[in-house]
Amino acid sequence: MTDRREFRDLAPPEEVRDVLASLDVAPGIEWVPFGDARGRILAERIDAELDVPGFDRASMDGYAVRAEDTFGADEASPVTMPLVGTVHAGEEPAVEVEPGTIVEISTGAVLPPGADAVVMVERTTEVEDGIEVRTAVAPGDHVMPAGADIAAGARALGPGTRITPREMGLLSALGVDEVPVRGRPTVGIISTGEELVRPGEPLDSAAGQIYDVNSYTLAAAVEEAGGEAVLYPHVGDDFEAMERLLHEAADECDLVLSSGSTSASAVDVIYRVVEERGELLLHGVAVKPGKPTLVGTVGDSAYVGLPGYPISALTIFREFVAPVVRDAAGQADPATATVTGTMAVTERYSEGRYRLLPVGLVKDGDGDLLVYPVDKGSGATTSLVDADGTVAVPPETDYLGAGETVDVSLFSPDVRPPTLLGVGEDDPTLSELLDDVDRPRYLPVGTVDGLRRLEDGTPDLAVTAGPVDPPQDAVELGGWEREWGLVVADADAVDGLAALVDGSARFVNRGTGSGLRRSLDAALDALAEERGVDRGDLTAAISGYGLTTNAHESPARKVLAGQADAGLGLQSTAEKLGLGFVSLGTQRVGVYAAPERVEKPGVSALERSIDSLEP
Amino acid sequence: MTDRREFRDLAPPEEVRDVLASLDVAPGIEWVPFGDARGRILAERIDAELDVPGFDRASMDGYAVRAEDTFGADEASPVTMPLVGTVHAGEEPAVEVEPGTIVEISTGAVLPPGADAVVMVERTTEVEDGIEVRTAVAPGDHVMPAGADIAAGARALGPGTRITPREMGLLSALGVDEVPVRGRPTVGIISTGEELVRPGEPLDSAAGQIYDVNSYTLAAAVEEAGGEAVLYPHVGDDFEAMERLLHEAADECDLVLSSGSTSASAVDVIYRVVEERGELLLHGVAVKPGKPTLVGTVGDSAYVGLPGYPISALTIFREFVAPVVRDAAGQADPATATVTGTMAVTERYSEGRYRLLPVGLVKDGDGDLLVYPVDKGSGATTSLVDADGTVAVPPETDYLGAGETVDVSLFSPDVRPPTLLGVGEDDPTLSELLDDVDRPRYLPVGTVDGLRRLEDGTPDLAVTAGPVDPPQDAVELGGWEREWGLVVADADAVDGLAALVDGSARFVNRGTGSGLRRSLDAALDALAEERGVDRGDLTAAISGYGLTTNAHESPARKVLAGQADAGLGLQSTAEKLGLGFVSLGTQRVGVYAAPERVEKPGVSALERSIDSLEP
Repeated sequence: MTDRREFRDLAPPEEVRDVLASLDVAPGIEWVPFGDARGRILAERIDAELDVPGFDRASMDGYAVRAEDTFGADEASPVTMPLVGTVHAGEEPAVEVEPGTIVEISTGAVLPPGADAVVMVERTTEVEDGIEVRTAVAPGDHVMPAGADIAAGARALGPGTRITPREMGLLSALGVDEVPVRGRPTVGIISTGEELVRPGEPLDSAAGQIYDVNSYTLAAAVEEAGGEAVLYPHVGDDFEAMERLLHEAADECDLVLSSGSTSASAVDVIYRVVEERGELLLHGVAVKPGKPTLVGTVGDSAYVGLPGYPISALTIFREFVAPVVRDAAGQADPATATVTGTMAVTERYSEGRYRLLPVGLVKDGDGDLLVYPVDKGSGATTSLVDADGTVAVPPETDYLGAGETVDVSLFSPDVRPPTLLGVGEDDPTLSELLDDVDRPRYLPVGTVDGLRRLEDGTPDLAVTAGPVDPPQDAVELGGWEREWGLVVADADAVDGLAALVDGSARFVNRGTGSGLRRSLDAALDALAEERGVDRGDLTAAISGYGLTTNAHESPARKVLAGQADAGLGLQSTAEKLGLGFVSLGTQRVGVYAAPERVEKPGVSALERSIDSLEP
Repeated sequence: MTDRREFRDLAPPEEVRDVLASLDVAPGIEWVPFGDARGRILAERIDAELDVPGFDRASMDGYAVRAEDTFGADEASPVTMPLVGTVHAGEEPAVEVEPGTIVEISTGAVLPPGADAVVMVERTTEVEDGIEVRTAVAPGDHVMPAGADIAAGARALGPGTRITPREMGLLSALGVDEVPVRGRPTVGIISTGEELVRPGEPLDSAAGQIYDVNSYTLAAAVEEAGGEAVLYPHVGDDFEAMERLLHEAADECDLVLSSGSTSASAVDVIYRVVEERGELLLHGVAVKPGKPTLVGTVGDSAYVGLPGYPISALTIFREFVAPVVRDAAGQADPATATVTGTMAVTERYSEGRYRLLPVGLVKDGDGDLLVYPVDKGSGATTSLVDADGTVAVPPETDYLGAGETVDVSLFSPDVRPPTLLGVGEDDPTLSELLDDVDRPRYLPVGTVDGLRRLEDGTPDLAVTAGPVDPPQDAVELGGWEREWGLVVADADAVDGLAALVDGSARFVNRGTGSGLRRSLDAALDALAEERGVDRGDLTAAISGYGLTTNAHESPARKVLAGQADAGLGLQSTAEKLGLGFVSLGTQRVGVYAAPERVEKPGVSALERSIDSLEP
């Protein structure tokens, strides 16, 4: 670790933007078939090459006439003219309108020679010796002249126009069958790190493998910005392999992004390749998160090295790289991607760095937006979906106070706050009930932490399990019972709590904040009292009592994997995973809402859903 | 025309919505590969099937220790322990941390057995007999426990979630390789009308052919709403052929749309097929435009017959059908697709019908939105791009007054008002200059009408050609000269104005509102004075003087097509089309802006662009 790179002279955000803007990542013009043009950006002006319509066109069903033959006609004194022919849409007129004659015509048909107007069918009557016309028309009435819609030579669509259904309509009217559009910049994505595995492939957790998150997150973000993503295979931390890959990607792409590894050595290798084989323009940026960001060139291609943690990589991509991709693709910045809200809590900063603080949104009882920081640790992928956007915090800011107004830059323009923000115990019935709610957000922080957060005022509701003291003013929306106990591989070997204490079974516990753990400890208290000992004597005798896991299925899955003999869990989990179960009792799951939030649509929807449970 | 259908008992908008909502067009669940899931809507809840991370993971580069071995260590009294091994990311630890020993560890690596914390590398020093640790750590420090990000069994994403880059990240972390998404409803589009030709195919204007606009506009709108469009071949007005096609489409699609023809007989045939072979639920709606809309079923499929005119078809689609397609696809309604502005002019209504008035948007000098009606005649395809959205006008409204506040439902959420709204003469140099402006809109209404509209106060600027009296307070942004005259097939046959008057050449003129026509008439005045006759004597002698066309290239194109011998036009047009040219003089093209609009970004951009012209 002696060659570990230090990031000095961190570039401020404006410099990062300037350097990125100076890189050329714009591809050339691409000609696409008309049918594929939707969503693309016109590269060149399209002028009309023909008149639309290409002929004088009847705009009503009726009769083509010489207007002067109708002068003076009205209901009282109609004019009758002999019918000399018919013109339908899509056929060349076979007849001419001689003075004093009349020709039947359909909407959209070519006005026959001689005619200069159309009489609406409603103002005529078929009579024995022809057509009786009961109105006078002026030349041009009910006729759309050739070129009246758009005329040959007229400017139809300008360069930079985004092709939506409306533009598709105009292009089709002009008969355009190939459309010159801005090319999509190709963006190569290189993931580094021996530990990364592609989704769909088997994962060896014991060997520290994890699924690759950044490649796919970034690929999707690149495509959202109008680029075309190209994923390159994972490589390890080998200099030659990385050099080959970077050059291959640079040859094939307008921009190369690397990301994925959090290991310093992989970053070091990339750093050396770019420094030796390309040009390193920026090394470290004064943005949190994002310090280890690199910007440079490799061959003719631009290069950006993103931080390894998913939320950091996506944040830096959105803030600095996406505008470059959009600009190269000719896509406009997304509209209205900013909302204003007030901070739900106070955030303090000790370090003077420009921050892009990931935040979640929730509406309070008055429908006003509350903004709360999301921080599960920067390595968490769930931060990606638990946050709705970022708040830019200038370096000189010491704190954001609760109630302070902040602007939130949304992760995408169509982000909307969840209709319900719940926190607390995780529970399979709850998971199903939440399916009935449109856009819920639920953070499984356990019973104890859930209640604390509810009292702090950010979430709409907390879900508890086991014996609890809910906040005094909380409104109970309802609840249900669940059976809990020991999920076991062999129900004969561990047939109850006493067997766990007295035997040598390897146990897996839950954390102290969970309702399951609280019920277990209460049961241990009862057993201790029965035996006339301290609870501590019993817990010391359980192998693995201190081994806690994060969620309700985790102990059971350790049993399933053969890493333990018994796990604290639910009867429903044992059933789902096909394991044995030793019941230790039932506990109530309760849902408690903040009183001013019970009328929120998502909260009412969950309440209805709870009410519909079988008693 | 005796079987012509009358539309009686027109359904009000609410009834149209109700009937459409009662139709089932939702397809089933579709499983797509993870890489294709972006933009789709989750059909089922995704629970985590594994812990993320799957192991206790170092979140810093440093050294794995038993925390208790560091208790008491600080800068003044460091603890030194022997280094017994190394664990990199992506490998299974080959070493255990026995009491009093230390193991080097990379970010992301598996915490080796025995260790319960990581000391950051920055707080250590390599010394001869091991690693010197200068800080105390607590159990769990710099370790992300298994499942801390997301735990097996936890609810990860709910049904109805739209898959954006963030959700792609979470799905990849969970190793999901196939994703259950809502199917896209397939929407069949049938164009009727003998006159329709697909873009790319040759067009016979003399036979009244036009390019099919509705099929492609609707297909793009269907895909924008989350559906999958299927185009069916054109059919004529034959009952059996239409019946076969409707049944084929109904078999293959969730929803069938017909549109394209404005001919009453084609509509009649569809009407009969639906009435005889399906169920007709609504026949005519009380909405302008949209009266001839049909709603029904054919086989197991829903059916909507849309009006024939493009802007009408798209308006009815967006207002009534798109919500059904979005709902079936599980797509949310587009966010913030409404803006508020004030009417630029007064609109009066004589007929009590619910209206969806197509409108354009323009910002006034204060940056406030002005809303103006777009009405080029309902058959115009250019209305599609000249309008930005619609204003819903209730049946009981007699008029919308200038200055009245109205809500505009935008054609799509990313519609933004043009940065410049110009009107007036069309001119090839102007077309090029407008390429330098971001999102301009230009309506080629001719010099006379352009000046009138500028005085009325809606556009930012008017472009004139030839001798004009601009409004007194208009600001001239600049101008240029253009050479005008006769575009001819044979410059020897028609060598000037006198030859046109005295010979028998077939001429094509421009309309009286155009600057070209005004210059021609001034030249004829001069010739008449020279000859001591009235201008009328001369114009009567020109064959085709009364034959006017809509745009500056149209007369030249008639010459090119052999339909005329000479056309009023520009030197640049003759050159572009490879025709002969007889100059009759030069005329000035002038650009005049409303004084309070000169600072608008688009107007300044055009002014800079004019300034950059060669003098």
